Amino acid sequence: MKQKAIFYHAGCPVCVSAEQMVANAIDAGRFDVEVVHLGESKGRVAEAENAGVKSVPALVIDGQPYHINFGASIDALK
Amino acid sequence: MKQKAIFYHAGCPVCVSAEQMVANAIDAGRFDVEVVHLGESKGRVAEAENAGVKSVPALVIDGQPYHINFGASIDALK
Repeated sequence: MKQKAIFYHAGCPVCVSAEQMVANAIDAGRFDVEVVHLGESKGRVAEAENAGVKSVPALVIDGQPYHINFGASIDALK
Repeated sequence: MKQKAIFYHAGCPVCVSAEQMVANAIDAGRFDVEVVHLGESKGRVAEAENAGVKSVPALVIDGQPYHINFGASIDALK
């Protein structure tokens, strides 16, 4: 059975492209990968909180939360 | 050609097992995944710094740094 990997974010444009690289890197053969925009799917905030998500972007793998902080480069913000 | 994914850590036992779940989740068909213990491989600290790594654990995918903060649960520390 595939494990579940959920990537939560809040729509920051720099981070979306950067963080989706992490989501994309996950082996789709072993994981069902889902990307959730919590700004648009407010109904799922409680679910994320219950999984231990304290900040976004975060990746929840098999119920375990990983908070990903991408330091956006100055170049990316130009 | 496979992209390179390097997972840097510093040996914290709780984090090693937790963070390796992230490294393991990466698609080995598309990425060469390497795990580097910077405490043991001090010669690679400069390489990590050059990739933009500011803290560990961090994952560098295709040259782009992602800082992963796993909030270790109290249970994991018991």
